[in-house]
Amino acid sequence: MSELKGAAIFGQSGGPTSVINASAAGVFQEALRQSAITAVYGAAHGIKGVLEEKFYDISKEDPYELELLKTTPSSALGSVRYKLKNAEEDDTDYKRLLEVFKKYNIRYFFYNGGNDSMDTCNKISKFMQNSGYECRVMGVPKTIDNDLWGTDHCPGYGSAAKYIATSIMELYHDAKVYDKGLILVLEIMGRNAGWLTASSALAAHAGFGPDLIYLPEIPFDMNRFIEETMEVYRRQNNVIIAVSEGIKDKDGKYISEYGSDLAKCKDAFGHAQLGGLASTLVNILKEKTGVKVRGIEFSLLQRCAAHLGSLTDVNEAYWAGQMAVKLAVEGKTDYMVAFEREAGPDYKCNIKLVNLTDVANTEKKIPREWINEAGNGLKQEFIDYALPLIQGVSTPPLENGLPRYAKLKKILATK
Amino acid sequence: MSELKGAAIFGQSGGPTSVINASAAGVFQEALRQSAITAVYGAAHGIKGVLEEKFYDISKEDPYELELLKTTPSSALGSVRYKLKNAEEDDTDYKRLLEVFKKYNIRYFFYNGGNDSMDTCNKISKFMQNSGYECRVMGVPKTIDNDLWGTDHCPGYGSAAKYIATSIMELYHDAKVYDKGLILVLEIMGRNAGWLTASSALAAHAGFGPDLIYLPEIPFDMNRFIEETMEVYRRQNNVIIAVSEGIKDKDGKYISEYGSDLAKCKDAFGHAQLGGLASTLVNILKEKTGVKVRGIEFSLLQRCAAHLGSLTDVNEAYWAGQMAVKLAVEGKTDYMVAFEREAGPDYKCNIKLVNLTDVANTEKKIPREWINEAGNGLKQEFIDYALPLIQGVSTPPLENGLPRYAKLKKILATK
Repeated sequence: MSELKGAAIFGQSGGPTSVINASAAGVFQEALRQSAITAVYGAAHGIKGVLEEKFYDISKEDPYELELLKTTPSSALGSVRYKLKNAEEDDTDYKRLLEVFKKYNIRYFFYNGGNDSMDTCNKISKFMQNSGYECRVMGVPKTIDNDLWGTDHCPGYGSAAKYIATSIMELYHDAKVYDKGLILVLEIMGRNAGWLTASSALAAHAGFGPDLIYLPEIPFDMNRFIEETMEVYRRQNNVIIAVSEGIKDKDGKYISEYGSDLAKCKDAFGHAQLGGLASTLVNILKEKTGVKVRGIEFSLLQRCAAHLGSLTDVNEAYWAGQMAVKLAVEGKTDYMVAFEREAGPDYKCNIKLVNLTDVANTEKKIPREWINEAGNGLKQEFIDYALPLIQGVSTPPLENGLPRYAKLKKILATK
Repeated sequence: MSELKGAAIFGQSGGPTSVINASAAGVFQEALRQSAITAVYGAAHGIKGVLEEKFYDISKEDPYELELLKTTPSSALGSVRYKLKNAEEDDTDYKRLLEVFKKYNIRYFFYNGGNDSMDTCNKISKFMQNSGYECRVMGVPKTIDNDLWGTDHCPGYGSAAKYIATSIMELYHDAKVYDKGLILVLEIMGRNAGWLTASSALAAHAGFGPDLIYLPEIPFDMNRFIEETMEVYRRQNNVIIAVSEGIKDKDGKYISEYGSDLAKCKDAFGHAQLGGLASTLVNILKEKTGVKVRGIEFSLLQRCAAHLGSLTDVNEAYWAGQMAVKLAVEGKTDYMVAFEREAGPDYKCNIKLVNLTDVANTEKKIPREWINEAGNGLKQEFIDYALPLIQGVSTPPLENGLPRYAKLKKILATK
């Protein structure tokens, strides 16, 4: 494969994680080292920044700040949720991208994201190919949801899982502190796949975890949920429940939407009140059981807790970014960088490449055989899968007792 | 002062913190070293365990597990909220305590808690004195609320403040990730004093904090709140608001109760829906501004996050427990151990003793002159006060990537 000289651009897309910037560090540091890459750009708010010709010249950044990206949560460049239309229906965006690529001689496009972002990558790659514009396109996986097809796991998942498992172990201690009964309902992210909620089983494995775990993979039955909760309560006077935001009943209706009939209800100010899943379940349990119930939503905290990153995850996120660049320079294109786990007792992952067409818009769920028969807990197979992913601690350097994050200058590339 | 030989008992009371067990470690390790102390007991669920003669023989515990208490969150012995009646009205409990103290020759009583717990300490101390039973009583301060009178600060506060400031710095990055507008409302504990909510100002001081901070010390005006929020929103398209659960309007009504007229509203299941403060404010802002608003409650997470303890706080919590024992053995009684900060540029704290009578049931609030004129932010005086309290990181040892907490045998003292 002949050397392809040109500029590289990198964008971050979709919901951020605590390690998406570690992948950015991998892409940037490697791209700056490669002689084939003539300029390194970071797109503001993903594909939108490319369309709007708003991207930063990464060579102008202080190397120490780029290093700090490894432990800076969220998306330093800004993220976006922007779905490209199919080029056959409307190719306006694609033509504009080609125009920008040509203007800056962009020959390397790296995009960091989940399912939708891989779809974006795939569409751009195919359009550039059809237009006869030589450009190497590589996707870098990212999602706390861990639901990307074709990879053993996704960067971002290990850190979120470590944070969730640790926080639940702490809450376990807090919830058992009085000798009065308490039911604790913990709402965890994951709209269609239960990987993140399942990570609560790691806390249980360590001796301080939830009694019941409800995943979107298993149809949710409210009456059974109440029965199972009360069964545990009668036995131990205390229940901890981990529940995925995405649980649905057998008709496919989200349980979080059960409360939406409330839209007509007004508070003292005349405002409609809408609760989330945790508050819906808390209210139902309170009324059905008469027991003290408390709900906690991990909310955004679970996806940006860089102070308790998994070192394994951070290193792999960096590695995925770095390898995307290396492999593109070597001639690879139209792939997502993925992880393949070696068989054997010790954890070891290798990089492999998967076709963007295959990975785009496919979701990976937890295998049914990793979930217990009752559908309210995880089996050892899941523990064996997830435990290696949360090993080691990554934490930002501190200044005055608080994290010191990357501060980028964000100097726009000259037009 | 002549040596007083006898058993010592220690209890934990009130809402737990991530360092209340560090004080327990200080009490236990010091008491086990003291020859005057003939037995060391840990009361199950505070004063209730004493009344019910349910306490553990600490000498039977593995020393390594006692050491692990330093980094184990919540109350290892179990906590309690139990208010003793005044002895003049009803002395049943006191007589029972005296009976138990005599039976086990308990001559040292250590109690770890906040305002109410110091009141308990005080009442017990006075009753024992009036009964002519020689017993040395020492209070050990504890509260994330930091509202105890007579001490520069309270063990538990520094760790909770560090966790809150760090988490807000992370959320700041997450909240600014899209180029769409967002208002984030963060609800922080503190019913009557705003110390914990004020710790969000440390995040702002580090460059990544809330734009507006509302404390219970300042009467809350809903219209002004909306105006101030929108003013920031118009300027920067993004607002982060830290708000104390205890904010009240000028008539003293909790804002969190504004939503309670909803009690008559039912969801699809016929269950009443009640929201907290964050959801009340989120709903009001949504309707008044039309902007995307998100609420996050730090809930129990903020008081048990031992994975991100302040090392200064953990060490001081231990020290307070240890000194309570040392000073009691030396003859002191009827005091709470407190901290006094030395003047000067470098942080240094000394132990002092304050009378239980003075400290019981008094609350310390944030001085008005530490709050900005508008009443929606903190001044440098607060930063100078709080920053030294969050220095250093305390984290539990890890096993398999997750915390290894103390596992006590909890062998009951033989009756």
